[in-house]
Amino acid sequence: MHQAPLIALLTDFGLVDPYVGQMRSVLMSAAPGVPLLDVSHDVAPQDVLQAGFFLAATLPWLPPGAVVCAVVDPGVGTDRRVLLVQAGSHFLLAPDNGLLTLAFESETGCRFFDATPRHAPRSATFHGRDVFAPLAARLAMGEEARDVAAVWSGPDPVRLEGLAPVREGATLRCRALSVDRFGNVVLGLPVARFDPPPAKAAVVAPVAAPLAPVRTYNDIAPGAVGILAGSQGYLELAMAGASAAARLELRGGDPVILDWPMET
Amino acid sequence: MHQAPLIALLTDFGLVDPYVGQMRSVLMSAAPGVPLLDVSHDVAPQDVLQAGFFLAATLPWLPPGAVVCAVVDPGVGTDRRVLLVQAGSHFLLAPDNGLLTLAFESETGCRFFDATPRHAPRSATFHGRDVFAPLAARLAMGEEARDVAAVWSGPDPVRLEGLAPVREGATLRCRALSVDRFGNVVLGLPVARFDPPPAKAAVVAPVAAPLAPVRTYNDIAPGAVGILAGSQGYLELAMAGASAAARLELRGGDPVILDWPMET
Amino acid sequence: MHQAPLIALLTDFGLVDPYVGQMRSVLMSAAPGVPLLDVSHDVAPQDVLQAGFFLAATLPWLPPGAVVCAVVDPGVGTDRRVLLVQAGSHFLLAPDNGLLTLAFESETGCRFFDATPRHAPRSATFHGRDVFAPLAARLAMGEEARDVAAVWSGPDPVRLEGLAPVREGATLRCRALSVDRFGNVVLGLPVARFDPPPAKAAVVAPVAAPLAPVRTYNDIAPGAVGILAGSQGYLELAMAGASAAARLELRGGDPVILDWPMET
Repeated sequence: MHQAPLIALLTDFGLVDPYVGQMRSVLMSAAPGVPLLDVSHDVAPQDVLQAGFFLAATLPWLPPGAVVCAVVDPGVGTDRRVLLVQAGSHFLLAPDNGLLTLAFESETGCRFFDATPRHAPRSATFHGRDVFAPLAARLAMGEEARDVAAVWSGPDPVRLEGLAPVREGATLRCRALSVDRFGNVVLGLPVARFDPPPAKAAVVAPVAAPLAPVRTYNDIAPGAVGILAGSQGYLELAMAGASAAARLELRGGDPVILDWPMET
Repeated sequence: MHQAPLIALLTDFGLVDPYVGQMRSVLMSAAPGVPLLDVSHDVAPQDVLQAGFFLAATLPWLPPGAVVCAVVDPGVGTDRRVLLVQAGSHFLLAPDNGLLTLAFESETGCRFFDATPRHAPRSATFHGRDVFAPLAARLAMGEEARDVAAVWSGPDPVRLEGLAPVREGATLRCRALSVDRFGNVVLGLPVARFDPPPAKAAVVAPVAAPLAPVRTYNDIAPGAVGILAGSQGYLELAMAGASAAARLELRGGDPVILDWPMET
Repeated sequence: MHQAPLIALLTDFGLVDPYVGQMRSVLMSAAPGVPLLDVSHDVAPQDVLQAGFFLAATLPWLPPGAVVCAVVDPGVGTDRRVLLVQAGSHFLLAPDNGLLTLAFESETGCRFFDATPRHAPRSATFHGRDVFAPLAARLAMGEEARDVAAVWSGPDPVRLEGLAPVREGATLRCRALSVDRFGNVVLGLPVARFDPPPAKAAVVAPVAAPLAPVRTYNDIAPGAVGILAGSQGYLELAMAGASAAARLELRGGDPVILDWPMET
């Protein structure tokens, strides 16, 4: 029964409405003394893929024992289940909608639990406050997965499809996981597998553009599109003082086709 | 002399400028160890009604002993008074401009105090940092209302007018309290009094639309406008994957006319 | 070896992407128990001047011993150095790009250190998480400047040029440091030197307008532009219920020419 070092929050509730404040109040009341970490509350509304990327990119930076409470939940109020994953020393709570797909890949030895509430929660529309926060607080106060959930049974947890990169000859197809504030495009190409890119890589679609492999943003020539090992664990496309996303007409979730000729 | 479990902050200062950071620094310096809870800092500028709704909706989720510091203050620097309300175990601090009107209704046994500073504060334009934060810190560190304020005398605290729903036959008039990030419209109709709505409820103005009583967002048919008991304690209008506010041409504060034929 | 009372964060990373969350996780892991204070994460992208103003305006409100971690860093990944300033009891960490110029002016007895990492950090593009946060955590846990950095040598730290107000007869030239959420324009005219303004002050450029010296926002007549001693330590231009910045066509960083006839 040790307290967690922190509870990490990830939602699409935004910071304007009082929703996040109410979640935080429930957590601070039920898990007093456990610090709260905001990963982001501005995931694009109902964008499960972006949330999954934000979480996968942040997991390596969480301390041992951290509890993650991720609520991007288009199916709130339906019979979608509540998924609890024990991944190493981390607990990950999320709706069973694929939000954790990318996190599964970066964590090994995951154990799956079903934390769906047995009784109707106080509200039918705000399970972040009424279901997920109380569960996260119990885990953060030292309860075990088996205390708050049953071992997962029935169909496997939902996975997002179409995220794995696909190679056909010199063509590489992947997804744009997210576009950041600076217009940098995060590609669904993990650095561990795809870095370094080939010297003659290029975007084929949606807009054709040669890519310049670089180490950092300042190495990109004006007007050129650079490709680099980004800080979030994936390859990134970037421009100098401009938006690569605008130049390539890419938005988070879009498919990307690359020319990826490996040197022989 | 017990420390408060938290100080809840609610302002229209936004998160871009350093105003909230300075308030927080004053609070963290004067009330070290007391956690801060951000209800919202993105209340629409000077929108006292929206702030009042955010607070009333959040009060039921605050732990006993919480101190609320709510600063939406168009009258800063004038002779408007500073209102301190002891509501159960909660302390509520706000400018005397009606911000607490909705909170009065949801709390019983309120006691009113006048916390207007006797001397000119350090700035004439930022009482959030220079008046409200120091007061909140003193209360959070265990001082009593009578230590930091006088019993309220003179004219009653300001109340926002025109918030109470009005029935005339089958017509129900109310206000839109707020529009959230998803385009859901919170009506000034408390769930405790107005749920369930009649089966044939409809919006008459500003834009006519039949309303479908539902339990949760996923029960709403495409294109239809649903009405449901929202998570914030009031009835809400919502659409599936679309903005009810845009469909009904409603913004926070607008009057709404409903057809509300009670079954006989 | 005392813990700092808080670590203050100031960045242009925004609150949408998970960058700030990762910085916070590194800090919470390496400096457990030290509270984090967000000054702002919405500095305009790469706007070093705005960041410098936010910091200078907030410094007087930080408790003794506070550690500041300010990362607006267009030169990330180049050979720009990492500057650590010991200013009284405060530690200020920032890229050596002029961000601290305004802070130098408001603090006396500054000592300068070079905290540039000797080895390549984990990422080439996110030194906020990989360089600045670990340094801030060490200082916050009680290490001294000389433990984490060398005494500054070589060329002086970079300073932003053109910030000092210049008088020529009745003409006063300065910069707009920032425009806040309400459209108020903060001028680079410290209250300590320029308050009170002359009775017949006026803006000459970019848009001519007479200025009405006032004490607080509510003293400004409709349509008029007021000038007042703002809460951030500088003179401000403001309008009643309108944006002075829009009226005067001013944005943060713009030069401003004033007519400033001192009474004789």
